[in-house]
Amino acid sequence: MEFTAAQIASFINGKILGDENASITGVSPIENAQNGQLSFVSQEKFAEFISLSEASVIIVSGKFVKEENYKPTLIVVEDAYLAFQVLMNLYQQMREEKKSGIEQPSTIADSATIGENVYVGAHSYISDKSKIGNGTQIFPQVYIGKNVKIGENSIIYSGARIYDYCVIGDNCIIHSNTVVGSDGFGFQPTKDGYQKIPQLGNVVIENNVEIGSNCSIDRGTIGSTVIGEGTKIDNLIQIAHNVKIGKNNVIAAQAGIAGSTVIGDWNMIGGQTGVAGHLKIGNQIRVQAQSGINRDVQDGETLFGTPAFNAGDYRRSYVLFRKFPEIVERINNLEKNSKENTNE
Amino acid sequence: MEFTAAQIASFINGKILGDENASITGVSPIENAQNGQLSFVSQEKFAEFISLSEASVIIVSGKFVKEENYKPTLIVVEDAYLAFQVLMNLYQQMREEKKSGIEQPSTIADSATIGENVYVGAHSYISDKSKIGNGTQIFPQVYIGKNVKIGENSIIYSGARIYDYCVIGDNCIIHSNTVVGSDGFGFQPTKDGYQKIPQLGNVVIENNVEIGSNCSIDRGTIGSTVIGEGTKIDNLIQIAHNVKIGKNNVIAAQAGIAGSTVIGDWNMIGGQTGVAGHLKIGNQIRVQAQSGINRDVQDGETLFGTPAFNAGDYRRSYVLFRKFPEIVERINNLEKNSKENTNE
Amino acid sequence: MEFTAAQIASFINGKILGDENASITGVSPIENAQNGQLSFVSQEKFAEFISLSEASVIIVSGKFVKEENYKPTLIVVEDAYLAFQVLMNLYQQMREEKKSGIEQPSTIADSATIGENVYVGAHSYISDKSKIGNGTQIFPQVYIGKNVKIGENSIIYSGARIYDYCVIGDNCIIHSNTVVGSDGFGFQPTKDGYQKIPQLGNVVIENNVEIGSNCSIDRGTIGSTVIGEGTKIDNLIQIAHNVKIGKNNVIAAQAGIAGSTVIGDWNMIGGQTGVAGHLKIGNQIRVQAQSGINRDVQDGETLFGTPAFNAGDYRRSYVLFRKFPEIVERINNLEKNSKENTNE
Repeated sequence: MEFTAAQIASFINGKILGDENASITGVSPIENAQNGQLSFVSQEKFAEFISLSEASVIIVSGKFVKEENYKPTLIVVEDAYLAFQVLMNLYQQMREEKKSGIEQPSTIADSATIGENVYVGAHSYISDKSKIGNGTQIFPQVYIGKNVKIGENSIIYSGARIYDYCVIGDNCIIHSNTVVGSDGFGFQPTKDGYQKIPQLGNVVIENNVEIGSNCSIDRGTIGSTVIGEGTKIDNLIQIAHNVKIGKNNVIAAQAGIAGSTVIGDWNMIGGQTGVAGHLKIGNQIRVQAQSGINRDVQDGETLFGTPAFNAGDYRRSYVLFRKFPEIVERINNLEKNSKENTNE
Repeated sequence: MEFTAAQIASFINGKILGDENASITGVSPIENAQNGQLSFVSQEKFAEFISLSEASVIIVSGKFVKEENYKPTLIVVEDAYLAFQVLMNLYQQMREEKKSGIEQPSTIADSATIGENVYVGAHSYISDKSKIGNGTQIFPQVYIGKNVKIGENSIIYSGARIYDYCVIGDNCIIHSNTVVGSDGFGFQPTKDGYQKIPQLGNVVIENNVEIGSNCSIDRGTIGSTVIGEGTKIDNLIQIAHNVKIGKNNVIAAQAGIAGSTVIGDWNMIGGQTGVAGHLKIGNQIRVQAQSGINRDVQDGETLFGTPAFNAGDYRRSYVLFRKFPEIVERINNLEKNSKENTNE
Repeated sequence: MEFTAAQIASFINGKILGDENASITGVSPIENAQNGQLSFVSQEKFAEFISLSEASVIIVSGKFVKEENYKPTLIVVEDAYLAFQVLMNLYQQMREEKKSGIEQPSTIADSATIGENVYVGAHSYISDKSKIGNGTQIFPQVYIGKNVKIGENSIIYSGARIYDYCVIGDNCIIHSNTVVGSDGFGFQPTKDGYQKIPQLGNVVIENNVEIGSNCSIDRGTIGSTVIGEGTKIDNLIQIAHNVKIGKNNVIAAQAGIAGSTVIGDWNMIGGQTGVAGHLKIGNQIRVQAQSGINRDVQDGETLFGTPAFNAGDYRRSYVLFRKFPEIVERINNLEKNSKENTNE
């Protein structure tokens, strides 16, 4: 696809400085944009690139434009970042046509219900009594167990596995190879070994949830594991049985939430964080990466460390940990002096 | 499926208090059970729910039943938790009929041996000379390499990948998207880059092992990576080449065991724990979540921290770490006093 | 496959001590080698096994051979480890015939370009306009999006998912269930929830890269996420959007690199390590397992801890952390003495 500066400016109500016929076929970050590419500058630290860049067209926030001639064609807007987002959304819609239709060979149970304008990719498998809502796209090689319900306009990427009885809402995105509804990790010790506790619940994923690739979301033992509306989950994340996650949380890659923990709304949980089981986590907390939470957390806390406590306090203690040898040296000196004093 | 209180009581030899015709169609934890659901109360902290619950039928340990009229129908047994487990096992057997037969399209090599009452789901692939034992269920979209042996009555869920020459025992469960037998991570540095060391061993998974979803179990370089009988492995776990894990271990999500480490029996390893390579870990140890083990471990140790040491000692040190600023303040004061003393 | 000592000696120019007709059908580490197996001894600590082993044939470095009669047949070479590697490579080539041809049922778009001697396994899916280079092997059940380019003689194992527009070089290996090109984790907060930022870039994997199983490599937001030539990545690893990794790095299992971080060449990054976003990491650094890097790193640094600093310094501080209770006891005593002194 090729666009001219004039076309782009019309999409975002921008003012052109330079050649309105300059054309682009791709986009790039400003620091390595080439001839034929579109870029944008919305931060002061990148303003110097405006005159240096090889980009053919640059969208620029008005405040960064000086009285001079630029080699790239500029499109001047109030907020270049927002304008660029609008453009990228348009571009994505053009590039990724929404798929529909049933590809063969695929396996769809007679008792399954497939909505209108649904896409089912080849080599996918949809089991008995499952329902796929209108406009939802099931990419190739997906597995959907029995009695699963998926809402409207959701996207399930290739290789995702949705076990029996799980429920996924509208406008959800589930990336490749994520598993929804594998058995919770529940065993009873006996003298001969561990006996499996049946995992009879399900997973409920509410609307507007996005889950990255290679995540594991276990089903409830009884009752549901729940991912609340608008929550975004990165890659390689573990959500254990009967966890309840509220709305609009952001959980970064490789974090893990242990069984039955309840998490509120609008929390930000850093990568590789662990949250122990059976806890109650409030709202609007922030957890630094690699922390380990082993207690209930109040609204608004910022946490760091294993076990995690206030992040500022953690950093203050950690600065001293780094100086531990000098601190002990000071104690040695005090002891030496104390001994000398005593011996005097 | 619908059951009456009378039917349920007959399964578990319980005594009915209330309406023996009360019927249920589902189960729920007691704290949010609804009309039409079955629940149970086996712990003191939930005893108050017996009279408050909307559940239609509740299984109750005898000691929690008082002389009063309850709205839900009660089924009184000695141990409500055990009775509920029995029931859940029955329920699961009714709900999950054991599948058998070969679905099409699937790919099964002519030289493969498929036992009796085996299920092979559509879009699965079974390579040359592999053997699948009686009663084993291979869900859709599974990959089984060549010369693989799988025992009897095992379940391999959708999207699991079993590389060439691996061996899986009887009554094993392997959840979706777990990979058994990918190459060990072995490279020799040369001045031009890393040269791959061939990974010619396999993985041996003994009987009654369960492995969660999205795990990676690498094949041995030469010889086998072994998961011992009855060991249970959660999700997203890394088991490196030539690791030997004994019997009845429990390993929680996102833990990783590095190459050639040998682990005994009946250990409990917490989530996100790392165990370094070439170590010898005894029996009946407990490792707190997120620990990092970098030394051999004796039987019965309880460990925490990175590097891990005795968990009680770790907690004692960590309490002081949290107070580090006050501790240094005490040193400052001592120095001030010492100086004053010296100057006196 | 069966080989005699004479055949093996001829492959590696070794000298036979013992029966040149001794035959082997498998290989094993020396500590548990059995009759009919080949093993090797290249390290002093294993030299005692030469006379004790049940192995039929052992390759031995010359310096470990004494004047005596051994039960196993020995093949004496200068460096047994190197000779064994040569042999293992030969063995692998014999055992793993390179596959070619298109298996059915598979889905290959008419507009896709498939090179010569390519293998496409059954149940695989190759989308519009993608190109697969000569000699590349695509195992069963792989998904390849549109406009993907894969070079020559690469291997993509079963269940790997390559999203649209990604590029993979020559001689690469991508293990099962790894995902290349899932969306970067980019959302803009609004008062109603998080709004998805389109992820329009791709992933570029250069030549001679190996990626383990169950990894997630996210596409760039705009521009590319890059894995440089010769870099080796273990299992369950997260590489976020717009990360640039240089040449010949080794990254161990369960590590994660956050968005836009740039990593140089010849680094070794330990398992379960986290690297924060937007950092610049030099060359030839070493990071101990479970570390957390939150700052730029200079060439040659060795790091440990969360946040990570010099590994030797970390260990010195950690030794003191373990003794924290005694250290505080020393402070207690100093305070007691100081008080006594003051009271005197």
